[in-house]
Amino acid sequence: MSSPSVPKSQRRVVLANRPAGEPSGQDFRVEEAPVPEPGPGQILVRAIYLSLDPYMRGRMRDVVSYAPVVQIGEVMPGGIVGEVVKSNHPAYKIGDIVEERLGWQEYGVSSGTARKIDPSVAPISTANGILGMPGLTAYFGLFEVGQPKPGDTVVVSAASGAVGQVVGQLAKLAGCRVVGIAGGPKKCAFVTEELGFDACVDYKAGGDLAAAIKAACPDGVDVYFDNVGGPVTDAVIANINFWARVAICGSISQYNSDTTELGPRTPGFFVGRRVTSRGFIVSDFLTRFPFAMARLGKWVRAGKLRYREDIVEGGIAKAPEAFIGLLKGENFGKLQVRVAPEPASLPRH
Amino acid sequence: MSSPSVPKSQRRVVLANRPAGEPSGQDFRVEEAPVPEPGPGQILVRAIYLSLDPYMRGRMRDVVSYAPVVQIGEVMPGGIVGEVVKSNHPAYKIGDIVEERLGWQEYGVSSGTARKIDPSVAPISTANGILGMPGLTAYFGLFEVGQPKPGDTVVVSAASGAVGQVVGQLAKLAGCRVVGIAGGPKKCAFVTEELGFDACVDYKAGGDLAAAIKAACPDGVDVYFDNVGGPVTDAVIANINFWARVAICGSISQYNSDTTELGPRTPGFFVGRRVTSRGFIVSDFLTRFPFAMARLGKWVRAGKLRYREDIVEGGIAKAPEAFIGLLKGENFGKLQVRVAPEPASLPRH
Repeated sequence: MSSPSVPKSQRRVVLANRPAGEPSGQDFRVEEAPVPEPGPGQILVRAIYLSLDPYMRGRMRDVVSYAPVVQIGEVMPGGIVGEVVKSNHPAYKIGDIVEERLGWQEYGVSSGTARKIDPSVAPISTANGILGMPGLTAYFGLFEVGQPKPGDTVVVSAASGAVGQVVGQLAKLAGCRVVGIAGGPKKCAFVTEELGFDACVDYKAGGDLAAAIKAACPDGVDVYFDNVGGPVTDAVIANINFWARVAICGSISQYNSDTTELGPRTPGFFVGRRVTSRGFIVSDFLTRFPFAMARLGKWVRAGKLRYREDIVEGGIAKAPEAFIGLLKGENFGKLQVRVAPEPASLPRH
Repeated sequence: MSSPSVPKSQRRVVLANRPAGEPSGQDFRVEEAPVPEPGPGQILVRAIYLSLDPYMRGRMRDVVSYAPVVQIGEVMPGGIVGEVVKSNHPAYKIGDIVEERLGWQEYGVSSGTARKIDPSVAPISTANGILGMPGLTAYFGLFEVGQPKPGDTVVVSAASGAVGQVVGQLAKLAGCRVVGIAGGPKKCAFVTEELGFDACVDYKAGGDLAAAIKAACPDGVDVYFDNVGGPVTDAVIANINFWARVAICGSISQYNSDTTELGPRTPGFFVGRRVTSRGFIVSDFLTRFPFAMARLGKWVRAGKLRYREDIVEGGIAKAPEAFIGLLKGENFGKLQVRVAPEPASLPRH
């Protein structure tokens, strides 16, 4: 069974060069490629929303980390939300909305691992955001690694970003005082006024950032959810409390650097304050994704969790420019590219 | 009841100046002071062994950490093993051997908090070492923070020191491959030949320390027990494994510095490898000291744990010089000062 509207060829974005430092448009190439034919047990998915996430910068580097390196000429990796347009798999039918890791391309095949999305819960783009990998990252990073208790002060950097906005709202549900760190007055106003954080520190405001964090956290910082690393993190650590937990989610400030930046040595300080610092990746909690997703979905439906998405129009060819901006903090909310229009049949929210 | 041999005055060592950087002899002053008279419920203890430990450098700094600052003119803090020479407390009798925090002085009073030592288990000086705070630090730091599993590679810095030598032997009992880091061939030979570590890396040997650690740890480092911080720690972290634990016990390389040294930023690296790093202090595990002490005592008696002490002769006045050497790694084993001779009545071991 096949939808009549599937073309023979598609556009996709491949890695053209390994960037030294900040990527440029020339490090990516938009090319034409055949639309693949799904084999037995496979489905063909048409991408609607492509998720752009900081981790992708790491894949462009020729260093094996927790995931494979993207080779020159290979399609850039990434999650998409899309529509099943051909199906040779009994669990999927044409028109199903799914989330799958198909990369920066308009069409791709999946072998039964695509997550089916219920469009009645929330707009389907949320499956790339608050009801997808970023939401799960916030959930497990905060609750399992950060271990917040009521009365704790929780600080999250990149607070208006895909993960940060969820972290802060979850910490409010847990009875914490929540302080965001974001760049510029618009993002800070969103974080406090729309998301309900208790305070937000503008790291671009100039002046002594550690002092600004101290003013916003008079009782110190019990949990720091770190998305950025670098000098912003230094300023939080200067205010870290006895027995604090640091959940290290990312270090976006360092991702465009090919050398290891120097920063203040903190281990001696961590002894006296008994700080626990732990790096994690969302897939570490894979077995509990359905559990957490059910909670997040319930809270989103009930209006207890709000979210902001930054959806770039113009199709897959816009992905490189949007991604380069993401690494500079130019997005405002969960960054996605609209690869194709949503089906008209989806419910409105 | 009172021993006839107690003099009227004693010698003690006070903080004379706050050192900038490395302490010198002029930062300490040896002075005469009256021997105090124990009040109701108190005992008078004659110090036999004074323990010298890296943490004391932190107390000389005018910065409140987890313990009070030593004021100028105050007696330097420290643990001693000594003999009860007067007792107004029913639980202690003259001649009892005790361990107590009496500081750098020949006599001091205790109000019922002194730990009674059984001289039949091991030489009484061990109550400042393997059967005292350093041994407990090794036990809880390794087992509770480091969480070694059989087959893990455990690396410990300052491997021939008071804590390091115990850490490595405990890790061997736990079925681990154990690699020490120590300064110079004599310490390294002791660590492998006397203590049974699988390998020891000489950080003073020159060359690429990270490469030397890699050669000694072909499967990477699963647990790093960090006593030193600084460049030695950088070289271990370069070899850290996925899911590794870093037990931060101390940062002796930084203790003589009044500014925060810069080092490579590692948080991004810690995400991919899911490293947990945790600072701790032995007193965090206070409620379980008796349990751990019983185990350590049993292993020492059975010859399963060996130890080396570096006992400086010449009385309390030698403490400053010995302590200055400790901060430079000049001691070889658990550093103590013999303040007075042991009572002739003690059992020989």
